[in-house]
Amino acid sequence: MADEKKLTSREEDYSAWYNEVILRTELADYAPVRGCMVVRPYGTALWESIQAGLDRRFKETGHQNAMFPLLIPESFMHREKEHGEGFSPELAVVTIGGGKQLEEPLVIRPTSETVIGHMYSKWIRSYRDLPVLINQWCSVVRWELRTRLFLRTLEFYWQEGHTAHATFEEAQEETLRMLGVYADFAVRDAAIPVIKGRKSRTEKFAGADNSYSIEAMMGDTKALQAGTSHILGQRFAKAFEIRFLDPNNELQYCWTTSWGVSSRMIGAIIMVHGDDQGLRLPPVLAPIQAVIVPIWRHEEQRALVLEAVERVRAQLAGSFRVKVDTREELTPGFKFNDWEMRGVPLRIEIGPKDVESGSVVVARRDVPGRAGKQPVPMAGLAAAVADMLQAIQASLLAAGIAFRDANIHTPADYDELKQVIEIGWARAFWCGDDACEARIKDETKATNRCIPLDQEGRGPGRCIVCGQPAQEWSYWAKAY
Amino acid sequence: MADEKKLTSREEDYSAWYNEVILRTELADYAPVRGCMVVRPYGTALWESIQAGLDRRFKETGHQNAMFPLLIPESFMHREKEHGEGFSPELAVVTIGGGKQLEEPLVIRPTSETVIGHMYSKWIRSYRDLPVLINQWCSVVRWELRTRLFLRTLEFYWQEGHTAHATFEEAQEETLRMLGVYADFAVRDAAIPVIKGRKSRTEKFAGADNSYSIEAMMGDTKALQAGTSHILGQRFAKAFEIRFLDPNNELQYCWTTSWGVSSRMIGAIIMVHGDDQGLRLPPVLAPIQAVIVPIWRHEEQRALVLEAVERVRAQLAGSFRVKVDTREELTPGFKFNDWEMRGVPLRIEIGPKDVESGSVVVARRDVPGRAGKQPVPMAGLAAAVADMLQAIQASLLAAGIAFRDANIHTPADYDELKQVIEIGWARAFWCGDDACEARIKDETKATNRCIPLDQEGRGPGRCIVCGQPAQEWSYWAKAY
Repeated sequence: MADEKKLTSREEDYSAWYNEVILRTELADYAPVRGCMVVRPYGTALWESIQAGLDRRFKETGHQNAMFPLLIPESFMHREKEHGEGFSPELAVVTIGGGKQLEEPLVIRPTSETVIGHMYSKWIRSYRDLPVLINQWCSVVRWELRTRLFLRTLEFYWQEGHTAHATFEEAQEETLRMLGVYADFAVRDAAIPVIKGRKSRTEKFAGADNSYSIEAMMGDTKALQAGTSHILGQRFAKAFEIRFLDPNNELQYCWTTSWGVSSRMIGAIIMVHGDDQGLRLPPVLAPIQAVIVPIWRHEEQRALVLEAVERVRAQLAGSFRVKVDTREELTPGFKFNDWEMRGVPLRIEIGPKDVESGSVVVARRDVPGRAGKQPVPMAGLAAAVADMLQAIQASLLAAGIAFRDANIHTPADYDELKQVIEIGWARAFWCGDDACEARIKDETKATNRCIPLDQEGRGPGRCIVCGQPAQEWSYWAKAY
Repeated sequence: MADEKKLTSREEDYSAWYNEVILRTELADYAPVRGCMVVRPYGTALWESIQAGLDRRFKETGHQNAMFPLLIPESFMHREKEHGEGFSPELAVVTIGGGKQLEEPLVIRPTSETVIGHMYSKWIRSYRDLPVLINQWCSVVRWELRTRLFLRTLEFYWQEGHTAHATFEEAQEETLRMLGVYADFAVRDAAIPVIKGRKSRTEKFAGADNSYSIEAMMGDTKALQAGTSHILGQRFAKAFEIRFLDPNNELQYCWTTSWGVSSRMIGAIIMVHGDDQGLRLPPVLAPIQAVIVPIWRHEEQRALVLEAVERVRAQLAGSFRVKVDTREELTPGFKFNDWEMRGVPLRIEIGPKDVESGSVVVARRDVPGRAGKQPVPMAGLAAAVADMLQAIQASLLAAGIAFRDANIHTPADYDELKQVIEIGWARAFWCGDDACEARIKDETKATNRCIPLDQEGRGPGRCIVCGQPAQEWSYWAKAY
């Protein structure tokens, strides 16, 4: 049961607010092992909504799910050099199995390029077998030192797509297609505006030729990478001998990609939409889209109210995810706060007067106070609920866009960049040199978030650090 | 691509047939780590069907999903003594994380009673918090020595339900309710007849007061435990301090249950329904319910046929899982065999003559040869397909029941039991003594499969081993 203490406000302590929201709305809890989490039923239902939205898009773009093993021979991790170097420090290693020391240690997958590469080398023979378009839903383990619920945990939940193609062009097209799928999901389902871009060399995935990401701005203006898509070139194909006979009967290496969205997305939803009252969940993903709260003062009103509540529930249940709050020991006021904190988009209040007038009171989570409340006739309530959910979805997205755009700055020089990075994102030309990127990171703690695909025709400019000619500009920000 | 060699027949070598079916239909493959498997897209789609059928039933009975961590402190495993002793020999142990030796080793969950018990002790405070009805879908690792694809692998996929209740009666009711859910799923969705029963003391789950299972007969007459439901009493509640304040404000230990169905269910589907041509998948679960094979001899017929194929596909796609086999390099005959092997319930053939007559030829997988083929007018095809899928589902179940019942014997004495155990199952009274059970196992390799809930009013009898009075009879069989 939620306790009645107010949440820490975001302004007071953003990080405390974030943790409190998660614990008190029962999205997740800390597991007994350091850095691990338990995703509670409410958080799991949200994750299942996210899964459904992504999985549908994966299938529409021709992908199939498979399940690859959790345990990978340690030696696999080192076959692709950069990949091995990148992931080695983060591995969880199984050295004992069935009471015996293992001859070769096994690692718990931190990501599955290696073992999937091994399997693809067995399955792919001919150009007719290509493309291979496979995704898996699973959890992976990375030994992170500083952890945050949903944002960075030792074990986290994700999907990882792994595809193999006959040509570079097809692999590149797939990489960008899935980036587009992620952006479409983020915008339409999670109501989170995102920027699609290419990662810098130092920020890319260990083992990729190029990485692309969708970047979102959180409520404290920090950036969060909300999904990534990598073109792996022929690196893993060469490390794992993924080859095919082309139509001329010549043996060729495949071109592979991988792409992933994780349970961080839940962290993004909390931070982009949440306010000082708690969560505000986008209706498309909300586990409960409308909660019905019965209200009565006198015991003799109870049957009348509950009968109307049941009629309303039945009217809505076929089209929406509805819950009736039947808890007897709690006051309506407590319930209002509780469901507000849990971010349910619509609250439907039904009391004796409402029953009499044949209407209900509907309160929108995104519009605070009285302004968000309105009476709606019971007849035709379903259509009104549909409209309001759509309006909430749109208003959350619009608010996210407005907030983001208000906090992206275009500094004129490096000094100004240092200032704006303290209050938001900077967009600035960069020559592409590692040293200039490193200087920004060292001096401001901001990283290159991405080189946006959409360069908005701003043409070539000069690097904000060194002043040398620069072809592209980037977003720079402190990030989770 | 499937190769054209015939499968080993079941009579020739049942075990070879089983493995070949799995590999050649691309349900699964061997992973690089001994005893682990990769579930390929076709197998994963079948697992997703199984998940959907079970998950719907879990939610209808008031359960919610959650996600608990993969890694468990090793010490947790020993808090409940019998549980620790049962699972210790099978653990995979992580001793290194992030490059460092861990202070306390972590085990990869072999099952999650311990870590879930720990969390429940944090979450449950009052009788108002009860019952807690949670399920999780995940994989678990048990260091098995002799492994078989789907039947016994180091890592396997499953769901594990974990519930906590205020009274023994409620926990017992839940245990039997979920056993009933499993039986309903097995019979209606998987078309597998099962027997519900209680496990003997030696066969029960390590840490349970009592275990219940559904038992199925495979095509070689061996038994397979296809799902289990355990009443854990207060053992885990005491080991992990899962307590609640009752309405009198007194602290009480909870009563807990756990129950699971795993990817073994796929092994059961293969072995109950499969024949010498390969899989026969029950329509309710089949990833592809109907495959459409276009047929033409002359290139000029191609457009005509494909246009009709598309019309038929569009007509069926809204209601059924349909696939069109568009592979150009393969003959129709090859495709027929291929989809037969993959167990697709219906094959729809469309050639130039069919287009002319406005009909298609539909072949049922469960009726071999010409008898299973019939022309069906294109108009109203959807209704005919629905009827035929229903008929196939019923015929598979009926065949399973007939086969099972024909292979259950009721031996008159212990000598006869030894004989019938070589050709099927025996049902026989047992006094309940461990020694009599051990003798049967030692001398026949058969185990006590279960003491069926339905004792069919056969009243008390005499133990088939020792001749002492016996209250209940059991099923005895060799098992996977």
